[in-house]
Amino acid sequence: MSNRSRATLADVAARAGVSPVTVSRAIRHPEMVSDALRARIDAAVHTLNYIPNHLASALASTRTHIVGVVVPSLTNGVFDDYLGAIQDVLNPAGIQVLVSNVRYSEIEEERAIQTLLGYHPEAMILAGVDQTERSRQMLRNAGVPVVQTMDVTDTPIDLNIGLDHAAAGAAAVRYLYDLGHRRIAHLTARADPRARRRHAGYQRAMDELGLSTKGLVGASPRPSDVAMGGELFARIVAAVPEVTAVFTCNDDLALGTLFECQRRGMRVPDELAIIGFNDLDYCVAAVPPLTSVSTERQQMGTWAAQAILDIIRGSGRRPRQPQIDVGFSIKARGSTVRAA
Amino acid sequence: MSNRSRATLADVAARAGVSPVTVSRAIRHPEMVSDALRARIDAAVHTLNYIPNHLASALASTRTHIVGVVVPSLTNGVFDDYLGAIQDVLNPAGIQVLVSNVRYSEIEEERAIQTLLGYHPEAMILAGVDQTERSRQMLRNAGVPVVQTMDVTDTPIDLNIGLDHAAAGAAAVRYLYDLGHRRIAHLTARADPRARRRHAGYQRAMDELGLSTKGLVGASPRPSDVAMGGELFARIVAAVPEVTAVFTCNDDLALGTLFECQRRGMRVPDELAIIGFNDLDYCVAAVPPLTSVSTERQQMGTWAAQAILDIIRGSGRRPRQPQIDVGFSIKARGSTVRAA
Repeated sequence: MSNRSRATLADVAARAGVSPVTVSRAIRHPEMVSDALRARIDAAVHTLNYIPNHLASALASTRTHIVGVVVPSLTNGVFDDYLGAIQDVLNPAGIQVLVSNVRYSEIEEERAIQTLLGYHPEAMILAGVDQTERSRQMLRNAGVPVVQTMDVTDTPIDLNIGLDHAAAGAAAVRYLYDLGHRRIAHLTARADPRARRRHAGYQRAMDELGLSTKGLVGASPRPSDVAMGGELFARIVAAVPEVTAVFTCNDDLALGTLFECQRRGMRVPDELAIIGFNDLDYCVAAVPPLTSVSTERQQMGTWAAQAILDIIRGSGRRPRQPQIDVGFSIKARGSTVRAA
Repeated sequence: MSNRSRATLADVAARAGVSPVTVSRAIRHPEMVSDALRARIDAAVHTLNYIPNHLASALASTRTHIVGVVVPSLTNGVFDDYLGAIQDVLNPAGIQVLVSNVRYSEIEEERAIQTLLGYHPEAMILAGVDQTERSRQMLRNAGVPVVQTMDVTDTPIDLNIGLDHAAAGAAAVRYLYDLGHRRIAHLTARADPRARRRHAGYQRAMDELGLSTKGLVGASPRPSDVAMGGELFARIVAAVPEVTAVFTCNDDLALGTLFECQRRGMRVPDELAIIGFNDLDYCVAAVPPLTSVSTERQQMGTWAAQAILDIIRGSGRRPRQPQIDVGFSIKARGSTVRAA
């Protein structure tokens, strides 16, 4: 495992006919050297396959060019636009995003935060606001900007951009209520904190409207998937055949409910109205198209990355408004309303 | 951005009442110290929120405890079990997985490889075998184990575990042919190398069977999603109304085709047979369930991580068989055959 074949900075300097200091400057601050010189050094870097040693340069300077990002899942479609937006802001600034997937576990999250902080990131971006007290302490002690996203909290560690999931859950119920529904079920899986808050919002709205939820909640601790939506809905129908509407904690469960209706010959929306959460791409394509609560995932990623970039590379100033509630919106489609 | 509040190794040693060398040993080689001593040091680490400095320890030793993983997408369901399997093997060994998402771009992949190598990973795992020549050179020069996954190649950089996508595409066609289909369409999007090979396999099988593909290929360079499956299939039906079967390069396009059939009142499988690729979870839940070509994603991740772990932490030996073709299988379901 020797690295003897690796080209050194000195090799690049010799080939380009300049001093090592000039090569170093061209690599770290390309804007400080002429185009011609940069082209010559780029050519030497390319020919020799020179790879800058980030470990050494990180120790030599205060910049590691790393931002740590913690997500609960790498495959939930929710984190697609979000991670893409973060990369789109940070990568052009020469900052590498290190992603750690903590699989909806606060303990895995604590370990991931400790590990990522060990690489001295210049900032940390977290999905969610439910870190353990130890995680919060580590993040506060790290002395770098921290952004909590996806959810809002009264006790942010530092910066915070997200939405109120309980309010979104309650809004989904009131939307169905306004369409005339009274037996409104809720399906929920993998009880992560945001799903629990949507569930709490459902319960609160049903209580406020004087509606019973007895037999109308289908919950599973297992990871969510499309098939589970059908299973949970089948249980609801068995308990409360009079159910007329379902609010699911994510779109996978909504799609599974739609398939279960097709399997049973139940007409959507005439016999059952369905509203999902997140508004993933397949909602529009389904037959009928699925109504869903839409969230501003891309905006959350962009704001988090830009706020950080401004602090560590720009004005150095923190955003005037350190906490933003981006809200949500209900995309009404054929699974809850007939096309006009 | 000062790190003055960070606890040092010396702080931990003082609190635990041992020497810094002992703390260092307990952290790096926990198996070398007694349970009681480890518990005392763990308590001090916990109380002080001590975070080991990976940058310094990486420069001081040859171990960075990092493995770099490059994937073309973080949200395509294909990479779910795969990344989970890699983490399940490496995390318990104290190795952190750094994931870089290159969004199906060979140039982004080249940049990601250069950046990841700058952190001196102990090994690299790549999805795909179509790296640029410069990427291949950097990986060969890095002097660490490299595993190419998801596809097989005659010219592996080092280790290789994957499947033959052209063979899988051809097998899908022959499966439909054996069911009696002759007008077999192919839908494909985001022409990444593996999708191109599945397409080539389709074309080869159709040629060998003496079947025309005229008007039967629907292709889009845009990223794939469910809605696109419906759009591409609608174009095929307009050109060749006699089409009786569709092979899609992924399950999203298959699901979109199923929805388009529902929209048009075309019965599946009686009027149209559909076979997807990857066997994502929703294939079983759909109505009818979707037939799909199943791939061994989890096995590829596990093998790659275990092979690496054995080289860098175990026997030091490379696997007896440095290249494995894991094959594929066709999961026949209701979208191609009637339930018995």
